[in-house]
Amino acid sequence: MENGKVEPKTLPGFMELLPNDQIRFNEIKEKIQKSYEKFGFLPLDTPVIEASNVLLAKAGGETEKQIYRFTKGDSDLSLRFDLTVPLAKYVSEYYGELSFPFRRYQIGKVYRGEKAQAGRYREFYQCDIDIIGDGSLSIMHDAELPSVIYTTFRSLGFEDFTICINNRKIFNGMFEYLELADKSTDILRIIDKVEKIGKANVIKELEELNVEKEKIDTIIKFIEISGTSDEKIEALRKLGIDTETFRTGVDELETVIKQIRVCRVPEKNFKVDLSIARGLDYYTGTVYETFLDNYKQLGSVCSGGRYENLAEYYTDKKLPGVGISIGLSRFFYQIDKENILPNENKSISKVLVAGMSQEELEYALEVGETLRNAEINTEVFLEDKKIKAKFKYADKLHIPYVIVIGEDEKNSKKVTLKSMKTGEQQTIDIEEAIKLIKNN
Amino acid sequence: MENGKVEPKTLPGFMELLPNDQIRFNEIKEKIQKSYEKFGFLPLDTPVIEASNVLLAKAGGETEKQIYRFTKGDSDLSLRFDLTVPLAKYVSEYYGELSFPFRRYQIGKVYRGEKAQAGRYREFYQCDIDIIGDGSLSIMHDAELPSVIYTTFRSLGFEDFTICINNRKIFNGMFEYLELADKSTDILRIIDKVEKIGKANVIKELEELNVEKEKIDTIIKFIEISGTSDEKIEALRKLGIDTETFRTGVDELETVIKQIRVCRVPEKNFKVDLSIARGLDYYTGTVYETFLDNYKQLGSVCSGGRYENLAEYYTDKKLPGVGISIGLSRFFYQIDKENILPNENKSISKVLVAGMSQEELEYALEVGETLRNAEINTEVFLEDKKIKAKFKYADKLHIPYVIVIGEDEKNSKKVTLKSMKTGEQQTIDIEEAIKLIKNN
Repeated sequence: MENGKVEPKTLPGFMELLPNDQIRFNEIKEKIQKSYEKFGFLPLDTPVIEASNVLLAKAGGETEKQIYRFTKGDSDLSLRFDLTVPLAKYVSEYYGELSFPFRRYQIGKVYRGEKAQAGRYREFYQCDIDIIGDGSLSIMHDAELPSVIYTTFRSLGFEDFTICINNRKIFNGMFEYLELADKSTDILRIIDKVEKIGKANVIKELEELNVEKEKIDTIIKFIEISGTSDEKIEALRKLGIDTETFRTGVDELETVIKQIRVCRVPEKNFKVDLSIARGLDYYTGTVYETFLDNYKQLGSVCSGGRYENLAEYYTDKKLPGVGISIGLSRFFYQIDKENILPNENKSISKVLVAGMSQEELEYALEVGETLRNAEINTEVFLEDKKIKAKFKYADKLHIPYVIVIGEDEKNSKKVTLKSMKTGEQQTIDIEEAIKLIKNN
Repeated sequence: MENGKVEPKTLPGFMELLPNDQIRFNEIKEKIQKSYEKFGFLPLDTPVIEASNVLLAKAGGETEKQIYRFTKGDSDLSLRFDLTVPLAKYVSEYYGELSFPFRRYQIGKVYRGEKAQAGRYREFYQCDIDIIGDGSLSIMHDAELPSVIYTTFRSLGFEDFTICINNRKIFNGMFEYLELADKSTDILRIIDKVEKIGKANVIKELEELNVEKEKIDTIIKFIEISGTSDEKIEALRKLGIDTETFRTGVDELETVIKQIRVCRVPEKNFKVDLSIARGLDYYTGTVYETFLDNYKQLGSVCSGGRYENLAEYYTDKKLPGVGISIGLSRFFYQIDKENILPNENKSISKVLVAGMSQEELEYALEVGETLRNAEINTEVFLEDKKIKAKFKYADKLHIPYVIVIGEDEKNSKKVTLKSMKTGEQQTIDIEEAIKLIKNN
């Protein structure tokens, strides 16, 4: 800069919030954490930096290009790009000391050198839970996760959201049956476009791919399945596909739907959606995507699924798992931009104690101590300013109460409590003030 | 590894905890956060990665060597090595949108490529608070911070700790007066050794440094000051040093001590200590170090002080501040190693719900939902295992209650609640079980 100073600039693609937004962000983060803990998930906090050979044991292609990778001394290091690889490392490394099924949550920052654009961050929070089995893992866990998703989004204040559930084995089993496994990627790409291009064009494109007529018929029957979750499952059984993979997929999906009901997730908040997660071959069974009903343009706000083997790059042990993830930074950006949750004024302090002059500061400090001992977050304004400036400060920070201490209050050992919301003010005992503040 | 696998290894110098320790760590972190919030400090969460020219505007020497610095594309990037430089950047960058005095806390990981050794981490948590003034900042804030330290360490369960307080202006003023400012570093190094080498040797070494006799007399009088905090302040005034810096230092120290008492920090938890923070020339006024009385070998567990100008590398604005920091990762390592806080068994779940067989699983899931709706962290054991294995799981995870669901419980809509601590068990209504669990 001109004055010989360095320009204080945060890097593009890195979220940095003003205090009010940071309080809102932290509240959401904490609610997610509390929801995860309600289901007994254990906290984990792995390093941001890992040895590159460990972190990239599996990675490749697009992911690898995005990695923040560098050397320090002789060490080839990388920043974690998700929380799943560190989990795989952790479970393999401490296998003997963990209890299975191992239920863990991790809320932390991950790093991807993506092209910076609105709502896409290079450093962002992921909020993950996973349940890892030792050798095997009951399908019941697949049914438990939607109730975690439900509890979490309810705690965040949402009512209108839908957890869409599918099972990868249904696709896989169908393509096995049709002997089209080698063309499955192309076919999925085509049928994904059905809403855009229409049935006739899907048929045309499948024909161009040299898919035989009766196979196209089956595929069309499949993508035309509609109705309630139960009707969809029924329709799947009637497709006449009899490979074991397909049957297992439908059975699993049925079990998951049945148990979700047992877990009391309301019908309106979940459904079978045979179109989701067609593209992700990381998952091998149940898959989840969650949409806000009135804001579908956000895409899935919580996704996940079942995988057969968490840590094959590190260990011979078979460690199947099921998990979900919320991309919190992007989610916060979106709900903020779309005004989905009210952008409320937040404060950490419940009360600002302000002396009329520095003469009353000692009593103000005493009052502050008394309030804090009553578990009320309290700030004492210590600068020598006019009372008006102190009120302005409380107002800017959205502090709901100001306690004014003048000579009278000091002498009578009382306080004048002013509600910044109603403007109401009254001179009362500290104990009474504490009660009033706590009840509001 | 032999089997073609990558060895799952965490880097040396990076803390990674098993679940029970992670729960304990998080509890401490949360208590520190709640204590900071009690005083109205606002949360901040800056990026781990910053542009190197921004982050290293001030750094140099030893610090710079430890930095994790690398390029990604065209960008020269560094990982933050403390939370103060990011604060300076933040306050300069968002100056117009902040309210002053700006009170913020930040709890986050920082990175230093130090030589890895026991208790020294390359990635570690710092828990910082700072109060930044716009142009000026009342000395009263220097008095407020010890009450934050006091509240924080009390909340962590400590009673025997001492916040040692000094003021850099006292040294500086003395050396000004003695016209020894150019030799101050050497002199401080010598007088720091007084307990080890004795008074006679200190005098000898000062003589070797060509310090005149009457100046040596003053220095010796200074380091022999003892007694209560008030007696020390009194003795300082009697040294006959009359530079303005010195007088200001003594006055500030006196004010801070007086106001700490107003803030009701007990006498046993603070004192004037004229020997602390002799080495840190970053601070310009009040300085703090905190020691656990029975574990002085830990060194200071919470340090900080007053600085004249937070952000001179970024802005012409004068931004004086005062702050403290707890190095949480090292602190946790130390209290664990020395067994300072009881290494208790912790759990996230309060209850494990276990069916006698998979026949009772649906009712078990219902019971789990009911407990969670009553705000009790509850896990339902979903795997098809013998009841003994389920108890073993609860025991390993230190879950205090197991609810056993057999055929009878299922039919009568009751639960059998077993306390894992007492072994006591009783078959009761869910509502009664909820009451019992909540009251324990």
